[in-house]
Amino acid sequence: MRDFTQDHRWLSINTATVRQQRGQDWPLDQILDACAARGIRAVSPWRDQVAALGLDKTARQIKALGLELSGYCRGGMFTAASAEAFQAALADNRRAVDEACALGAPCLVLVVGGLPGALAGSLQSRDLVQARQQITDGIAATLDYARSVRMPLAIEPLHPMYAADRAAINTLEQALDVCDVLDPTRTGALGVAVDLYHVWWDPKLYSQIERAGRWRLLAYHVCDWLVPTRDLLTDRGMMGDGVIELRRIRAAVEAQGFAGYSEVEIFSATNWWQRDGAEVLDTCIERHRTVV
Amino acid sequence: MRDFTQDHRWLSINTATVRQQRGQDWPLDQILDACAARGIRAVSPWRDQVAALGLDKTARQIKALGLELSGYCRGGMFTAASAEAFQAALADNRRAVDEACALGAPCLVLVVGGLPGALAGSLQSRDLVQARQQITDGIAATLDYARSVRMPLAIEPLHPMYAADRAAINTLEQALDVCDVLDPTRTGALGVAVDLYHVWWDPKLYSQIERAGRWRLLAYHVCDWLVPTRDLLTDRGMMGDGVIELRRIRAAVEAQGFAGYSEVEIFSATNWWQRDGAEVLDTCIERHRTVV
Repeated sequence: MRDFTQDHRWLSINTATVRQQRGQDWPLDQILDACAARGIRAVSPWRDQVAALGLDKTARQIKALGLELSGYCRGGMFTAASAEAFQAALADNRRAVDEACALGAPCLVLVVGGLPGALAGSLQSRDLVQARQQITDGIAATLDYARSVRMPLAIEPLHPMYAADRAAINTLEQALDVCDVLDPTRTGALGVAVDLYHVWWDPKLYSQIERAGRWRLLAYHVCDWLVPTRDLLTDRGMMGDGVIELRRIRAAVEAQGFAGYSEVEIFSATNWWQRDGAEVLDTCIERHRTVV
Repeated sequence: MRDFTQDHRWLSINTATVRQQRGQDWPLDQILDACAARGIRAVSPWRDQVAALGLDKTARQIKALGLELSGYCRGGMFTAASAEAFQAALADNRRAVDEACALGAPCLVLVVGGLPGALAGSLQSRDLVQARQQITDGIAATLDYARSVRMPLAIEPLHPMYAADRAAINTLEQALDVCDVLDPTRTGALGVAVDLYHVWWDPKLYSQIERAGRWRLLAYHVCDWLVPTRDLLTDRGMMGDGVIELRRIRAAVEAQGFAGYSEVEIFSATNWWQRDGAEVLDTCIERHRTVV
């Protein structure tokens, strides 16, 4: 297991962690500058933030600052109530793949979508089995394109509390089952993003990390699970403030050969999004060294 | 699959559904009367409600009204930071078994506990693997006693969002693994309570219902998952108001031979607990017939 206590060379910042501080958007160019100024070597930006800054401009700034990406957030959202909507989702995923390539991302993270219409407040179907089949079909189609441009896809299982509206892939086992169907020879083109917020509770976590192995472990995200958790979406904790056994899980992932970044992704409406971005980044560095 | 549309003979009311209406406790004796007056044949009371009314008095009223129990809520909460606290939990579970016997319950439902101290706000350990071992030990000890008085134990897997503070058994598969360890010959002494709120999202739901089979399926609870869900604990929906495929799952359970009550258990601080209990019970009857 790598020693993180001496420096933060393996820290990455998911830019949603500091996207809106005290009610104001923190523009991506400023986030990138603030990360680079602190010796943070990697980031994982969101598509809307990149779109606001401009794709070319983002790519140039990342290169100029010597930053790497630990992933690109995000593709997915495959579930749709009509064939037209499904095709539109596939087209959007191809654009996301292209953007990931332009930014030099190591993978495109997929949040696969829940029941059609649920997130928009207009549920179209309760058929979870069918939604999951559509998700597999959507990943398959996107994988065809992503292979052609050599962009790995990382399926991110989301916590079961998001099964209805955000992602109906909810365990590492389920994500790996999809990987085995679509990429049986483990080419590296398809794998998983392990976000501890979503998977820490899973009684099969360690066995499935072992099953995943080096070629399926494409991204590693940390934050913490607070007790109590006051909101299903925006009450994630800073590493060390919750109940997740961060080092035990990282040891398991690294035992499989994972040697990439530990990416901090925190949605925190009432705590960390209410502070100065600089304070949040400094805290991420400190916690990375002391508890991750 | 049984036809529920013509009557509500297989409806049971978990008394937490109407425990506090408009800020006032609805006393258990009044709940029992209100259920009986509507031809509801079964209830599942909570220990604190029974304690408030008195165990003997509750047993007599249930008998006088011709009611049955579909379960007794609840034993469990085995995780403890000290040997003394663990022994105290076991003693409390023996008392819960005795109460279940006195009330003629078909099973004692177990909510097994999370990380030690988490629910009380004083976390003692983050070791989830150890907590789960302690849970298995606690169920084993309680099962020894429960067998001696012929009271079946029903492990209730709770939604993963409760893994930290309420129950670290979070999937049907995990609960059945414990059953297989402690009761390998499927004697009927140990099984599961399938509460759809907790398990509806699970990609292995149908395969694990099949695995459970008739002798492990001891209780069946319904409500609904709302989108959005605004609180982790007290924002459950009335059947039909959410996204759960109620009939599809009931068909799967009944295909295994389950022929017991469909028990309504709704915690709803801002909606159903703000209405008259009579309206809530009438709505349960109507939804039982139309959507369950």
